[in-house]
Amino acid sequence: MQRYKLTIAYDGSGFHGWQEQVAVQGPALRTVQGVMRQTLQRVLGQPIELTGASRTDTGVHARGQVAHFDADTPIPLSRLAKAINARLPDDVEVRQVEPVDRSFHAIRGAVDKQYRYRIWASQQRPLGLRHMVYHWWGPLELKPMQDAAARLIGEHDFAAFANAGHGRTSTVRRIFDCRVVTAQPPQVDLVVRGNGFLYNMVRIITGTLIEIGRGHWPPDRVDALLESGDRQQAGPTVPPNGLCLEWIEYQST
Amino acid sequence: MQRYKLTIAYDGSGFHGWQEQVAVQGPALRTVQGVMRQTLQRVLGQPIELTGASRTDTGVHARGQVAHFDADTPIPLSRLAKAINARLPDDVEVRQVEPVDRSFHAIRGAVDKQYRYRIWASQQRPLGLRHMVYHWWGPLELKPMQDAAARLIGEHDFAAFANAGHGRTSTVRRIFDCRVVTAQPPQVDLVVRGNGFLYNMVRIITGTLIEIGRGHWPPDRVDALLESGDRQQAGPTVPPNGLCLEWIEYQST
Repeated sequence: MQRYKLTIAYDGSGFHGWQEQVAVQGPALRTVQGVMRQTLQRVLGQPIELTGASRTDTGVHARGQVAHFDADTPIPLSRLAKAINARLPDDVEVRQVEPVDRSFHAIRGAVDKQYRYRIWASQQRPLGLRHMVYHWWGPLELKPMQDAAARLIGEHDFAAFANAGHGRTSTVRRIFDCRVVTAQPPQVDLVVRGNGFLYNMVRIITGTLIEIGRGHWPPDRVDALLESGDRQQAGPTVPPNGLCLEWIEYQST
Repeated sequence: MQRYKLTIAYDGSGFHGWQEQVAVQGPALRTVQGVMRQTLQRVLGQPIELTGASRTDTGVHARGQVAHFDADTPIPLSRLAKAINARLPDDVEVRQVEPVDRSFHAIRGAVDKQYRYRIWASQQRPLGLRHMVYHWWGPLELKPMQDAAARLIGEHDFAAFANAGHGRTSTVRRIFDCRVVTAQPPQVDLVVRGNGFLYNMVRIITGTLIEIGRGHWPPDRVDALLESGDRQQAGPTVPPNGLCLEWIEYQST
């Protein structure tokens, strides 16, 4: 059996998140893991277990989700991605298939992940982009948002930026980079890189930065939040559709 | 009665085109004109007749569709657009409301229109943008496409670039500008401006330029097409979802 690493991109709008769910009654919910696993089984003609790095929520997108599976196949590597893509629907695709060592693990080996949250800051509606961005009607001051974002960089207890249900013992994470950028006006993007993320963490960080950008709170609110660990004092969890998992890096093996 | 000029933007994905259709049986098809006219009637509390400049097809988008209507309303002009938008669904919006002279006519007064056709030229899928672009998998040579596009500028008989059903007597139109641009790779956009367009004209021009860009035909095929007027010799009608009506200009009154 050969282990393969898959890099996967998807529009999350039509999926109930990444994780395959067992249908108790009625038809199974459409999930990225479910669609991908069934497609792999058809292409490879064998039962497949698929482990994804990140359990993205309903509506969340990915440019570089990573997953691994084990299989034996006569299909040459050069044709594998094409064979899989030919059977995938048009809202998901395999960007890369790589044979990896059996020690590779999509969840455990991840050392760095980048997310982007797209805020459409305009009086005008995003229209065709509405599934990809969060529409914020009011004005946003960038400087205070950038100031607040920088305060999140480093190793901190992010308990205030996690919703219940994360199921992790420690809420300490290391954020390598956290920036507010405006490459494509009227979009204001939060780009955040770290070694791990708590449940809804990027969405709560974004909700908090928006409160700061609208002048509701000063940038140093973030310091108080990191200190207190009190979720109630942070901003709201903004909607999933603005969020995209951009890439995941692994330790070199 | 005051005449008003509306500038309208929409994501065409969820509409059966611009034109309101009478339902012979079953529920009426959802059209931009239908949704807009009913919303205007609710906001203004009177029957409204709405005349749109361009009958965009199912799936075609607009940033600057123009329409006019007559009404008497106590709502101040400064609040009219907001009042209408508050009742519109999120895939359509009014960008501007202007009082105009009774001589203004959305169809008859138009002197210049710009369309953009977005080709997503990549092996990778457009995913979240798939409703806004036409996915072309193969390579495209830009130079021959640009050469061919330039040959369309000027006054010509565009009979070869029209599908049946246009119902116009003359097939002569003046194209002010026709360019192939690559502002946002991997997008290749055809931007075309003219005093009028025949049925499916931009989509057939795009289909023809793609045949040229893929090396199937030389750029001077376009000259032969203008000469012959033979639709059969032109490229295919590419799908509607890549097309966007960008703006319409009117003679100053």
